[in-house]
Amino acid sequence: MKIGRQEERSSAISTSNPDTIVVRGRDLARELVGAISFTEHFWLLVTGAMPSAAQRRMLDATLVAIAEHGLVPSVQASRMTLAAAPEALQGAVAAGILGCGSVVFGSSEAAGRFFVTIESRAAAGADLEAAASAVVREYRAAGSAIPGYGHPLHRGADPRATRLLEVAAETGIAGRHVAIATLVERLLPGILGRPLTLNVSGAIPAVLLDAGYPVTGLKGVPLLARTAGLIAHLVEEQRRSIGFVMSHAASQAIDYDGETPPGFKPTDEA
Amino acid sequence: MKIGRQEERSSAISTSNPDTIVVRGRDLARELVGAISFTEHFWLLVTGAMPSAAQRRMLDATLVAIAEHGLVPSVQASRMTLAAAPEALQGAVAAGILGCGSVVFGSSEAAGRFFVTIESRAAAGADLEAAASAVVREYRAAGSAIPGYGHPLHRGADPRATRLLEVAAETGIAGRHVAIATLVERLLPGILGRPLTLNVSGAIPAVLLDAGYPVTGLKGVPLLARTAGLIAHLVEEQRRSIGFVMSHAASQAIDYDGETPPGFKPTDEA
Amino acid sequence: MKIGRQEERSSAISTSNPDTIVVRGRDLARELVGAISFTEHFWLLVTGAMPSAAQRRMLDATLVAIAEHGLVPSVQASRMTLAAAPEALQGAVAAGILGCGSVVFGSSEAAGRFFVTIESRAAAGADLEAAASAVVREYRAAGSAIPGYGHPLHRGADPRATRLLEVAAETGIAGRHVAIATLVERLLPGILGRPLTLNVSGAIPAVLLDAGYPVTGLKGVPLLARTAGLIAHLVEEQRRSIGFVMSHAASQAIDYDGETPPGFKPTDEA
Amino acid sequence: MKIGRQEERSSAISTSNPDTIVVRGRDLARELVGAISFTEHFWLLVTGAMPSAAQRRMLDATLVAIAEHGLVPSVQASRMTLAAAPEALQGAVAAGILGCGSVVFGSSEAAGRFFVTIESRAAAGADLEAAASAVVREYRAAGSAIPGYGHPLHRGADPRATRLLEVAAETGIAGRHVAIATLVERLLPGILGRPLTLNVSGAIPAVLLDAGYPVTGLKGVPLLARTAGLIAHLVEEQRRSIGFVMSHAASQAIDYDGETPPGFKPTDEA
Repeated sequence: MKIGRQEERSSAISTSNPDTIVVRGRDLARELVGAISFTEHFWLLVTGAMPSAAQRRMLDATLVAIAEHGLVPSVQASRMTLAAAPEALQGAVAAGILGCGSVVFGSSEAAGRFFVTIESRAAAGADLEAAASAVVREYRAAGSAIPGYGHPLHRGADPRATRLLEVAAETGIAGRHVAIATLVERLLPGILGRPLTLNVSGAIPAVLLDAGYPVTGLKGVPLLARTAGLIAHLVEEQRRSIGFVMSHAASQAIDYDGETPPGFKPTDEA
Repeated sequence: MKIGRQEERSSAISTSNPDTIVVRGRDLARELVGAISFTEHFWLLVTGAMPSAAQRRMLDATLVAIAEHGLVPSVQASRMTLAAAPEALQGAVAAGILGCGSVVFGSSEAAGRFFVTIESRAAAGADLEAAASAVVREYRAAGSAIPGYGHPLHRGADPRATRLLEVAAETGIAGRHVAIATLVERLLPGILGRPLTLNVSGAIPAVLLDAGYPVTGLKGVPLLARTAGLIAHLVEEQRRSIGFVMSHAASQAIDYDGETPPGFKPTDEA
Repeated sequence: MKIGRQEERSSAISTSNPDTIVVRGRDLARELVGAISFTEHFWLLVTGAMPSAAQRRMLDATLVAIAEHGLVPSVQASRMTLAAAPEALQGAVAAGILGCGSVVFGSSEAAGRFFVTIESRAAAGADLEAAASAVVREYRAAGSAIPGYGHPLHRGADPRATRLLEVAAETGIAGRHVAIATLVERLLPGILGRPLTLNVSGAIPAVLLDAGYPVTGLKGVPLLARTAGLIAHLVEEQRRSIGFVMSHAASQAIDYDGETPPGFKPTDEA
Repeated sequence: MKIGRQEERSSAISTSNPDTIVVRGRDLARELVGAISFTEHFWLLVTGAMPSAAQRRMLDATLVAIAEHGLVPSVQASRMTLAAAPEALQGAVAAGILGCGSVVFGSSEAAGRFFVTIESRAAAGADLEAAASAVVREYRAAGSAIPGYGHPLHRGADPRATRLLEVAAETGIAGRHVAIATLVERLLPGILGRPLTLNVSGAIPAVLLDAGYPVTGLKGVPLLARTAGLIAHLVEEQRRSIGFVMSHAASQAIDYDGETPPGFKPTDEA
């Protein structure tokens, strides 16, 4: 069945014939393979143009920053899935990236849209600080968390965010969105009554939007980066499996508080 | 419940405290972010050591080679999923990488194991050509395809495979596994009665095993690379949606050949 | 790391010892297996109580209604995934259900929340018709589709919706939410300037909310039902594979409109 | 591109026009909705024919038996995923069913193929006990687990398996495959040197193959059933979230044994 309007019928990413694969207008095998880095290729794929050296360095920095942070929920889900289904590594990677959501490691895009909203208010004539303050208050009124701020472990400062802003300064990329990100960090204690520092998911859109990377591709950065981390964990899981060890510990942390049939005796092993 | 033996209870990839995130023994924010490329970071994550310049260039070349090949099945599944569920980009990426299987773009690991089997036979004393020939015949006898050979479009030669072998020669990485890969290509016409050329999924393990990359991580290469391609397609899908256009065309290609209730009249729109 | 407040530390669904598995307070093997239907078990799992005969019949009707509708996008994604990765049926099912999103077949929950919003406005004192009209206009003003109305193929009436309302009447379940659903259908032409009939994703929450099924479980109904349809398609795909046939047709429907390197000649086979 | 032979171009499951949806030759809305149970519909979808009362009861029993067993790895992965990405319930269900693999809860199909292998050896003239014994020894020689036997918690007997065989006897369905399943259970101590009892994943294919259900659909039974259990857990997770509680406990169970930079001090919070 025909769903929606279906007016678009073309794509501009890749085509091929038996001899040549074209990617973003280039001959993949003859122009790109062996000549450019994977990070340059990712930028080219997403934007259609080759990055400058500064853009490449900035994108590399964000991908390195967010790729790995130990046994976080998505890594646990991935390793448990491989332990249960070792025949499908792709399934274990998929289970992991499905945890790239709005709460934990997928908030880069939400933070990017938050910065863009402040920027467009200011572009429409508002004072930047007034615009930032108003948007923060609107998020609060709607019961939404401020995306890109606060971290359960790195409460004083997220060292990755700090470093990404340094790289943005070093490369000359830091601009309007970095300014907004640091402005919001400065305003939050007054509005919330407590400090909440910029985290890696806030720093990533700040530096990448300033670098000219599109907001619609922001969620792709943690997704691509974390896939690298997941693969490392799945290589380790094949050698020393801890998926079921983690699952056992997790189940031990939870009590059953429903009813039981007459005579049922719980065991230590839930 | 406690599943399996559960002897392993540790991981060597990452740890952290409020100030510092450790990845593979390094201080992530102070030593790695802004200093190394994402490809170097991926090698470090998977192997625990930094790559040489040649290893990095070889890994970059494979990731660039396999990232994108147009509207292949996994890309279609991904774009259809985003059209249906735009609220979850991570779900669309997951749907795409679930197609990284044994038949289409996930055969790098199978090809790697195929080369390793030939290599270990030869290491045990067999002549290399005899070993290769024997293993090919065993795959055929078991009804298995020869992984890493043949392509539905690039029948004469897969330009990506050709280029990857060139880069392996340029970097001095080409060794035993590249030799096996080209030997098998030479032997296949005599065994199968028709030529079957090395494809990108055969070239990737040949050059990466020679570079010292582990066989258990081979499937991660197409998975990581294709994630980059999927993200580019999903960025495009947000601007010009073709997911339901492709779905309509796909459904039109298939007839219904089951029974129908009395009086049922088919329409053009299946 | 400790994410969030973590106050809850218990679950009331299932516990077990070596002899007995307890599900919702019952002895699974001795009380439920062989004694109740899967639909009754699903209601018990979700709500903690056994359904009445009318509740069971209503839930059965919704599950049967939404399980299957031919080669829709999610089925295509699933069959393409199995063709590419036949080693992991679970991956193909996962790829299919990831398309249960806000646009296509996952709108039952959104429609349920839409009805609940109208109901709570009316419960707070508004006239039901005024409440419905106001909520519809708010959705329109926000640029949101009215969830549960309209269908790309069944424009005059969705026969599944019609039948579900009949079953709700036959079982005596039809109540406030069915009334709201039909009221909105009556109001829409006046507000939108064109008719838009109740579809299956609108009828499901109307009848299930009236049956006492929880709004947080509404999305589970199309998810569970469509899993049954996907499995049927994957059983057929194993016998006669059309995954790559659909993919070929889909790719033929899309033109490449990007640049090409000098001398590149397109082929019929994109 | 055209992958594979592409000879099949039809499907026999469903078609539709604006007034009527046809499923397996029936008018879905007028013949099936409100008239048959979801379990009957699942049988119809998979096999193309309506089940007998005994077949329906047997399928219901297996679906009820395998739907839920507490906080197993797949449920944990699913609840952690919803905690991280509450915007996509379909993603959390997908993450859960990706754990329906060869090791943990997806072994019904492998057990079914094991029984069919024994049956076909016997049908070819071998004594049934000799055939069973030979196939068990072949699995052992290949280093494969015997699918359908043994359970980490229910060591004496899996109460679900016991009950499913009772239902198969009550319904008159028990036949050749149930006989093979119990024969293998009797032979295992002599071959392995220790008892290993039939588990639920062995009982399901035994009773369903005897009921006439196809071997290619066996994996669909735990997949469909566990989807019901996952939905119940995700409804509970929305009310009382334990996803991150489990994740914290899981991470606490694992030590970091890699290197650390000079001066790095671990915290209690890994």
